[in-house]
Amino acid sequence: MRLILVAGTTATAEIDGISAAGADKDLLGHTPGADAELLTYGDVVRAPEVPMSPTGCPTPALVTRAARELAGFDVVTVDGGLGIPTGAPTVTVGARPGGDIREQDPVPSAPGAFEAARQFGWKLPAEEFVLGETIPGGTTTALGVLRALGEEWSVSSSLPENPMELKEEVVAAGLEASNLQTGDAAGEPKTAVRRMGDPVLAVVAGLTVGALETGTRVVLGGGTQMLTAAALVRHAGIEAPLSLATTSYVADSVPDFEAAASALDLGVTVSDPGFDAVDHVGLASYAEGVAKEGAGMGGALALAERAGVLDDVAAKTFDSLQRLEVDNGP
Amino acid sequence: MRLILVAGTTATAEIDGISAAGADKDLLGHTPGADAELLTYGDVVRAPEVPMSPTGCPTPALVTRAARELAGFDVVTVDGGLGIPTGAPTVTVGARPGGDIREQDPVPSAPGAFEAARQFGWKLPAEEFVLGETIPGGTTTALGVLRALGEEWSVSSSLPENPMELKEEVVAAGLEASNLQTGDAAGEPKTAVRRMGDPVLAVVAGLTVGALETGTRVVLGGGTQMLTAAALVRHAGIEAPLSLATTSYVADSVPDFEAAASALDLGVTVSDPGFDAVDHVGLASYAEGVAKEGAGMGGALALAERAGVLDDVAAKTFDSLQRLEVDNGP
Repeated sequence: MRLILVAGTTATAEIDGISAAGADKDLLGHTPGADAELLTYGDVVRAPEVPMSPTGCPTPALVTRAARELAGFDVVTVDGGLGIPTGAPTVTVGARPGGDIREQDPVPSAPGAFEAARQFGWKLPAEEFVLGETIPGGTTTALGVLRALGEEWSVSSSLPENPMELKEEVVAAGLEASNLQTGDAAGEPKTAVRRMGDPVLAVVAGLTVGALETGTRVVLGGGTQMLTAAALVRHAGIEAPLSLATTSYVADSVPDFEAAASALDLGVTVSDPGFDAVDHVGLASYAEGVAKEGAGMGGALALAERAGVLDDVAAKTFDSLQRLEVDNGP
Repeated sequence: MRLILVAGTTATAEIDGISAAGADKDLLGHTPGADAELLTYGDVVRAPEVPMSPTGCPTPALVTRAARELAGFDVVTVDGGLGIPTGAPTVTVGARPGGDIREQDPVPSAPGAFEAARQFGWKLPAEEFVLGETIPGGTTTALGVLRALGEEWSVSSSLPENPMELKEEVVAAGLEASNLQTGDAAGEPKTAVRRMGDPVLAVVAGLTVGALETGTRVVLGGGTQMLTAAALVRHAGIEAPLSLATTSYVADSVPDFEAAASALDLGVTVSDPGFDAVDHVGLASYAEGVAKEGAGMGGALALAERAGVLDDVAAKTFDSLQRLEVDNGP
């Protein structure tokens, strides 16, 4: 079994108040590469440190890595527009860092990356794979894509208080800059992601379309960004079965999550890693609704559940936090 | 445990009669990427086919993959100057495809790639790793480096008849073009590899130096190209323990192999995968002295031996040849 992590960046993350991925703005650009390094090696290599949210919540990549160590699946990272070279090995599909969606054409590499990822999805020798994403600011660009497609659902946040008003403002400004009305890109996934999205969504959607077209099963591992990727796949006219694996933290806190998954005809798996029982402030904050998902965490938990090791993930994650000397609270 | 494959190209391979890696010149450039894909996925993805020598000997990458499936080690590919995008994920250290060593400055990216690989070697979280290489034409560039360093040993070949005269001619022309006498680059590994080598040797040597400098153990998995990498490491002034794992096909056929390993103070492991007992013309040709090594095969066999599964590698390789529908002889 293989988990494919698509890692990239969008300048949308630099808008004040948008993202919790990386406590410090200087570190924000390192987060996706750091996540890929953690999944590959169990530690950062070229990235300066393990990503933490402003409130001390460690990156979900640590949970995905812990699940990987227990369940023994492979990881491949696809470059979905990384801005800084990572020490993790990456597959290139032509994605470039995404611009701020308040610009007119923020992701010109999206259509090409979608097609290259689709071809990669055709050729990948696998019966099934799990997809994950890591892109700071990704829920805002996901919201932009949903509105461009004409879908009414909401998105999650890695912050304790989801700044939905700010996100809606940014998306409204983006639609205006792109000269689009809500729903104008319905049935045109490449346009939606080019004008209102990010390069990671383009690559995730393209990979999924290519895999489904050749009979490979895909599990989207994540929250509302992966719901958005699924919407792109459906708007590409692909009706094949598709599933989504997320955490209980997303499923319990996003009001219309089940309705959206059902409307997109997705099989949904929800896993609870039981972080409320772990004596670590950073992990406990997951149970309090911070972070929730990312870096394929939901998909990795589903694989851990299949392998019968889900109950060991919390302790394994705690061990790696100790080993990596990540602070346990203020 | 992790095997790091360094994959790249040199225009030296395009000289008539030099390389057996890829039966067809059009396919030669695809060989290193194909090897990386085979190690990562068990099949080619973007490469057009499984590499075969002109006499029908399949790439040693299939053996490394078989050993990986049995022994369960990770694989990371480092881009050592690939000319064509591969579907395997790769780490970038700034290596560019190498030129023909009969030019004056065939590998200008070598010093920078050596240093970037060295830094990657410093940071890689591991107690030990195995290194492999895949570069068509690599024994000729290895010979060039040995002569530039002033080392007198010979090199192996993946062809049934090692074209040593041709290789010596090419190296003599290279030394002349670089205005070097034999031994002029002694103690100057970056100069030796820049003027007479290839980008893969630069990356392998840099990675090894960086790892040894930070106390990480390195096993060089391969034949005379890895001996040459070890020579570069010693000429960089690194005296730390270093070992080399190769196949019985190299150890039995390269006359001064043991003497060279001893002079370089290398611990040597030799593994026999027992291909003479397998009913496959392509694999039997390994036992007849064709191919011999490559794509980390010797290192992978050593890991299989440690894991107690060496005896299963031949059958596993045979199975994958059947699955991939690689021809069994003419």
